[in-house]
Amino acid sequence: MIDTLRRHIPVLDWSRTYSRQAFSNDMIAAVIVTIMLIPQSLAYALLAGLPPEAGLYASIVPIILYAIFGTSRALAVGPVAVVSLLTAAAVGQVAEQGTAGYAVAALTLAFLSGGFLVLMGVFRLGFLANFLSHPVIAGFITASGILIAASQLKHILGVRAGGHTLPEILVSLVAHLDEINWITVVIGVGATGFLFWVRKNLKPTLRRLGAPPLLADILTKAGPVAAVVGTTLAVWGFSLAERGVNIVGDVPQSLPPLTLPGLSPDLVGALLVPAILISVIGFVESVSVAQTLAAKKRQRIDPDQELIGLGAANIGAAFTGGYPVTGGFARSVVNFDAGAETPAAGAFTAVGLAIAAVALTPLVYYLPTATLAATIIVAVLSLVDLLILRKTWDYSRADFTAVAATILLTLGLGVEVGVASGVTISVLLHLYKTSRPHVAEVGLVPGTQHFRNINRHKVETDPTLVSLRVDESLYFVNARFLEDLIQKRVTEGCRIENVVLMFSAVNEVDYSALESLEAINHRLKDMGVGLHLSEVKGPVMDRLERSHFIRDLNGQVFLSQYEAWMLLTKPGLGQVTD
Amino acid sequence: MIDTLRRHIPVLDWSRTYSRQAFSNDMIAAVIVTIMLIPQSLAYALLAGLPPEAGLYASIVPIILYAIFGTSRALAVGPVAVVSLLTAAAVGQVAEQGTAGYAVAALTLAFLSGGFLVLMGVFRLGFLANFLSHPVIAGFITASGILIAASQLKHILGVRAGGHTLPEILVSLVAHLDEINWITVVIGVGATGFLFWVRKNLKPTLRRLGAPPLLADILTKAGPVAAVVGTTLAVWGFSLAERGVNIVGDVPQSLPPLTLPGLSPDLVGALLVPAILISVIGFVESVSVAQTLAAKKRQRIDPDQELIGLGAANIGAAFTGGYPVTGGFARSVVNFDAGAETPAAGAFTAVGLAIAAVALTPLVYYLPTATLAATIIVAVLSLVDLLILRKTWDYSRADFTAVAATILLTLGLGVEVGVASGVTISVLLHLYKTSRPHVAEVGLVPGTQHFRNINRHKVETDPTLVSLRVDESLYFVNARFLEDLIQKRVTEGCRIENVVLMFSAVNEVDYSALESLEAINHRLKDMGVGLHLSEVKGPVMDRLERSHFIRDLNGQVFLSQYEAWMLLTKPGLGQVTD
Repeated sequence: MIDTLRRHIPVLDWSRTYSRQAFSNDMIAAVIVTIMLIPQSLAYALLAGLPPEAGLYASIVPIILYAIFGTSRALAVGPVAVVSLLTAAAVGQVAEQGTAGYAVAALTLAFLSGGFLVLMGVFRLGFLANFLSHPVIAGFITASGILIAASQLKHILGVRAGGHTLPEILVSLVAHLDEINWITVVIGVGATGFLFWVRKNLKPTLRRLGAPPLLADILTKAGPVAAVVGTTLAVWGFSLAERGVNIVGDVPQSLPPLTLPGLSPDLVGALLVPAILISVIGFVESVSVAQTLAAKKRQRIDPDQELIGLGAANIGAAFTGGYPVTGGFARSVVNFDAGAETPAAGAFTAVGLAIAAVALTPLVYYLPTATLAATIIVAVLSLVDLLILRKTWDYSRADFTAVAATILLTLGLGVEVGVASGVTISVLLHLYKTSRPHVAEVGLVPGTQHFRNINRHKVETDPTLVSLRVDESLYFVNARFLEDLIQKRVTEGCRIENVVLMFSAVNEVDYSALESLEAINHRLKDMGVGLHLSEVKGPVMDRLERSHFIRDLNGQVFLSQYEAWMLLTKPGLGQVTD
Repeated sequence: MIDTLRRHIPVLDWSRTYSRQAFSNDMIAAVIVTIMLIPQSLAYALLAGLPPEAGLYASIVPIILYAIFGTSRALAVGPVAVVSLLTAAAVGQVAEQGTAGYAVAALTLAFLSGGFLVLMGVFRLGFLANFLSHPVIAGFITASGILIAASQLKHILGVRAGGHTLPEILVSLVAHLDEINWITVVIGVGATGFLFWVRKNLKPTLRRLGAPPLLADILTKAGPVAAVVGTTLAVWGFSLAERGVNIVGDVPQSLPPLTLPGLSPDLVGALLVPAILISVIGFVESVSVAQTLAAKKRQRIDPDQELIGLGAANIGAAFTGGYPVTGGFARSVVNFDAGAETPAAGAFTAVGLAIAAVALTPLVYYLPTATLAATIIVAVLSLVDLLILRKTWDYSRADFTAVAATILLTLGLGVEVGVASGVTISVLLHLYKTSRPHVAEVGLVPGTQHFRNINRHKVETDPTLVSLRVDESLYFVNARFLEDLIQKRVTEGCRIENVVLMFSAVNEVDYSALESLEAINHRLKDMGVGLHLSEVKGPVMDRLERSHFIRDLNGQVFLSQYEAWMLLTKPGLGQVTD
């Protein structure tokens, strides 16, 4: 009972042994993460089309709920770039940006997404996330990074463009080029350049100047804060807002408010599919980060419990003025590197952000949106990894096709079409590959009991015996292929008396394949050729024994191919092929 | 050149050796098939919602075109029950039955379907039909049989009901029950009972009375003709048409007319998906029949050339007043049993039907539609095979699920939804099964070089060595599963020094799985455990060598598991488990 409780509410587990040392490490990590999160939260809310405070609210209660229910000790939960983009795409279809309906739809999206994650966790369906292959995820993240960066250009240029796909965004930007505000451009380009410089060069420079590593690290992470402070002061000092520079403006000074997601059937119907998509993508991103960090400390995370933790966080976001959240890569790595030992670090970060929400929001009145756009651009361009195209091209054309299609479709038709097509293409490519399985004719490696492909190894064969190693599970997609192949091979050789199907690589025989095997058996029987099986695995044999096939088999089932060889070959006829 | 031509126009091949004996056999077969086809063609046209002559026209030119381009020597092409039902469902969505638009839409459907089949054939995509698993086809055919029989009840009762799904059909019948024409019921039920009796009992009875087998056979096949003649005479003699019995009425006396399919973008857009569905289902049905018959005579059919033959037949139907056709099961078996030797039998059948179209159509004026409905019901109920539910239940729950879902969805939501869901469910079940692969820990079978599951066989093991046989190709759906499993197994045993992954059943390693293997290698290296592979197949090894994995591997790749065992075990520590 207690164990079950601890399993489902991990906080009960780790809090028992919480030490003063862990507390102090967690506090330091929380301070660093808080400093980093303030501008990031505002920026991602902007990306999602929501008022800036929504980003802060989405980082407070969700972090605490994840600390209670999640299993990763370093994961930092909150708004992330890709999920913010998906939110903008989904909510933009049901409401106008800036309306009350838009904010309510974002809450609903978080609620649906949270509910779906919890359900997946309760039914232990975490494995479904595996349907997103690595190439599809890599392609999707890369394309999203490009899309997000492109979508922020309007803030850098100070124009009012729109669009959800790369062509739409670019066309809209060009159409609005006459609105360019050059002061905004100077701020935006300056901030972007500064942030890139900080990311690439500040740490080595500080280290050369003799700064201790931790300080160098904190200063580097505080780069966005410096950009925020600097540009805010510039806008305030030179009254640039009056000269057309867009600023954040009034942000309420408040703890997260109590909010209710809208649950009208129309709204739920329109947001259900996007919510599922956001859940799955958020979960995959979060679990990859959590697993990577856990492995570094020999800890394990439980994917099904992670679903519950992330689900609780999203439901929390829905009731406290937030929007969909997940475990973010950048913030989690910062948290981990800063020495966070337990989820308590997350809770302390929440406190820090709550203080910011109450006390610091007036300070960002003059913050230019161009600066926030710059922090987003610098953050997401690190997600763009076009090398994946090269790597998959070298390894396998099928994986390359999946990556390339996902990238192109995401850029060209938007995030939802992109990821759905990526999954579909991966599945179809897999089915295509297994539809024409590799079947090797094998012979005995001399001096061993081992059988290998006659075309690749020097092996012994016998003209009366055809041994075929079927390199694929047999199921409906390839059942007929095997029928045709055996028919062809047997009609080629006139001295053939026996065919052995070596089943060492056959992991499943479904009903369609069973019918094909029965057809093969009948045809070979009619031709006076024996059909034998060898090295049939336990689970496959169990299943075959439930049918008539084994009883009707015109031959035997051998434990090993060597046994089949010893019994079926004619001594003196053997020959060695090369 | 000549060979290519012969390959694509098989008539050039078989006609060279056409003998007098083959001619006489083909003629006899043609006479029998013609007698059978006259009522059947009229009936299926009725099922498709078309005037009766459309069924005759669809049997004339298409048969000739298939004789030229098809590869099966016994396949009889023409209207079949399932395709007629699909035609009614598709065309009913764009036009009202009985209008000129309805007939044009049927032509368009045949044209699109023919074009799609020819394209598939030219691009050699016949294997795509394998995506329809045997359970899905069996379930679909069974459900279609039930649907068709139900849809004919209105003709038996003489009421004007409608509906495309079983609930719709039944509700509509009940709503129209007050229109029942009792004379029609007597004719319909009488004809149905008579036809069932002929099918079941006539042949044995005739044989007992001393009739020669061929005569008994022909008389049995002529059962529908007897029903047609008998009921037509009854309607004519007793003037039953004036008492509300529906009759076929005027059928033009004409050879197939030259017609043009409508190709407006709207019509093509609305019919494209149904046309693809009809093509695929028609092709699968036709190829199964053709393969079964070909195997009986040690002939082979070429699925890609079959696509072209069927495509040509459908395009022919589109230009000669027909509707979609395919190779029918019943007619092909009759043709084969009657001794047809070449496709010329089909051409002679076409001549017979052309004569019927010109000379015999006035004779069917008084033919009651109830009789045609009776021939359809008797024909399709032989397609209904509910035993498949039992067989698949015994063999595998996954296959049972596919059959049951296909049957229920086809009956409940119609043919198109049914077959599409069936295919989707089959694919998802396959992915689910491969997502949690069987991984067996193996040991050496004493006295051999063969390794088997330690839980099923008495084998030798070594506490420092874990040998895992992975019983599945590694790809994105199961990549993470293996990561978790190895992590778990290795943290369990403290003396483990080496892990060998036996890859005899791994037929593919995609990019996602490669990344998982790299992660496993890294983690084991960190723990001081060696990772080795054994029995890696050629194609898999070729691919792995293109990546960094083999270079970075903290261990070796062994040709056989036995080699790995000899090198990695510590003599003296071995133990035998049972």
